Amino acid sequence: MLQEKPTRTKGNSQEIETGYVVGADIGGTSLRLALAGMDGNVLAKWKVSTAGIRDANVVVGLIQEGVESLLQENRLSRSLLRAVAAGAPGVTNVDAGIVIATSYLMGWRDVPLRALLEARLGVPAAVENDVNTAAIAESQIGAGQGIRDFVFLAVGTGIGAGIVLNGRLFHGMNWSAGEIGYMLVPGTSVEPVETGEPGALESIVGGEGIKFQWQSLWREDLTPLPKDLVATQIFDHALAGDSLAQTVLNRSAHTLAYAIYNLAVVLNCPLFVLGGSVGMHPALWNLTRDILAQRDKRVQPKLLRSTLGPDAQVNGAICLAIEAAGSRVLTS
Amino acid sequence: MLQEKPTRTKGNSQEIETGYVVGADIGGTSLRLALAGMDGNVLAKWKVSTAGIRDANVVVGLIQEGVESLLQENRLSRSLLRAVAAGAPGVTNVDAGIVIATSYLMGWRDVPLRALLEARLGVPAAVENDVNTAAIAESQIGAGQGIRDFVFLAVGTGIGAGIVLNGRLFHGMNWSAGEIGYMLVPGTSVEPVETGEPGALESIVGGEGIKFQWQSLWREDLTPLPKDLVATQIFDHALAGDSLAQTVLNRSAHTLAYAIYNLAVVLNCPLFVLGGSVGMHPALWNLTRDILAQRDKRVQPKLLRSTLGPDAQVNGAICLAIEAAGSRVLTS
Repeated sequence: MLQEKPTRTKGNSQEIETGYVVGADIGGTSLRLALAGMDGNVLAKWKVSTAGIRDANVVVGLIQEGVESLLQENRLSRSLLRAVAAGAPGVTNVDAGIVIATSYLMGWRDVPLRALLEARLGVPAAVENDVNTAAIAESQIGAGQGIRDFVFLAVGTGIGAGIVLNGRLFHGMNWSAGEIGYMLVPGTSVEPVETGEPGALESIVGGEGIKFQWQSLWREDLTPLPKDLVATQIFDHALAGDSLAQTVLNRSAHTLAYAIYNLAVVLNCPLFVLGGSVGMHPALWNLTRDILAQRDKRVQPKLLRSTLGPDAQVNGAICLAIEAAGSRVLTS
Repeated sequence: MLQEKPTRTKGNSQEIETGYVVGADIGGTSLRLALAGMDGNVLAKWKVSTAGIRDANVVVGLIQEGVESLLQENRLSRSLLRAVAAGAPGVTNVDAGIVIATSYLMGWRDVPLRALLEARLGVPAAVENDVNTAAIAESQIGAGQGIRDFVFLAVGTGIGAGIVLNGRLFHGMNWSAGEIGYMLVPGTSVEPVETGEPGALESIVGGEGIKFQWQSLWREDLTPLPKDLVATQIFDHALAGDSLAQTVLNRSAHTLAYAIYNLAVVLNCPLFVLGGSVGMHPALWNLTRDILAQRDKRVQPKLLRSTLGPDAQVNGAICLAIEAAGSRVLTS
């Protein structure tokens, strides 16, 4: 069925002739979907909360719901869906279509996500780590376009890297290349890491770590600000002049700059793209660039902010779905 | 001429029919050459001091002298030489055949080493960074055989890494991937680096850095040992129980373990091979392994010592020369 060309219907556009794909971004707090034509142009988006949901079957059910809703609202026949792809928040075996492990938020272990999606939707599916889907999008339509080697850095709750080498994602031996939340740089803890704990680097640079730093340093006589702030609020207050917030920003930016410098030294790549809600904050971006500029004349990677922002993951999933539509048929 | 098959001579072996190559390792203190058959088997070696020599033409002249001497001593006709390759102690553009920069010891800048060798020897030549030639040898005939992704760590005067990904050397954008002497880990200095200065990591893990650490800590009442020791002697004394030497070893091993851990986290590669005179020392190897084993259950790369030792560079150059004999003709 999938190998058949959809029949042209009177009065319908070229897009209907070639079909449609859906890209999904599975997060710990929300599930985001986008419907696109085979040229990658996004026609519509869909979003639902995933708070409290851990069961992979429930998530796949929500994806199905979103796909059906997107098709119906755009008056597209179900038979025009060519493929889907999903970015998952964990280590993912792309070849086998299995999410090996996600963080404690979802708690997935060896979830055959590709097979679940194919069984439920009846079209070819692809799966990938969510930071890697974002890196794919930045590479194909974002800040990394035309760059052979670059690293996408997603700074949200934690921090992860999508590494593009020779124009392709580099996955590593066990699909966990770029798990830089565990990197050790000056100022990070060297204590051995327990499984499931945040890594040394993300304890200082990730959203949760930044919040924790703020709370550890907070004293009523040091700042007029409340103890309960999130990372981006802390950075906003740093820009507005609060000195305690500046201390936290300063430490995060130095630590991030050291990590980027290390990656640049190892991979000798000319570009880093900052994404994620925390990574997109201009205060972090500007200060990190300044610190890098002063470090080492020989090692001067360019540091850009993501041009796709929160859409990067879903856009990358669309790229993967288009690929899956062309190269795979259903395995089951 | 190079495309012609050498004529078979009565009574000569198969090796004479297929020809010979020479691999060279250019170092700041010595130049090492080895003559091999087209199967890579080494027939003879040659070595000369390079102390005080900076001029690339003089080095190329010494290589020519060594090549002629190796051929004569083995009663081989000059026409049987098929190719040469050299590993150079600096950033090397393999495609252009140019050594972009070496450390202060040689002081080379943009030396067209491949063209110089070809002009002098009349056979195809190849050039590569010396740590990378060692990584090639470990990959093809040493500790990295059959391993798709691994990192060769050369710890001598300084420290550098040869990165093999998907079975091939990874060079990076400007041929300087793996320059990990500059990596920042807990305990290293974060001071900006001046051009030509040793990097933060090699100040603690490299031979010169270890010597400097020893001299900084040395006091007559702390150790019966002399102030003037080299890195491997300091490690020998650490094994023999000297507590000041153990302090230095301990710091070096922790710092090296942090660097290996970072590389493992970024590249997700399963194997690291330690080489170089300092890197081969069993005290450093054992302690670094112990520290890595205790760090993180999820990240447990294997750490082996080079099986080729000081021959790794020359062996890798032989591999490159065999490749050059098959794939290139003289450009000039």
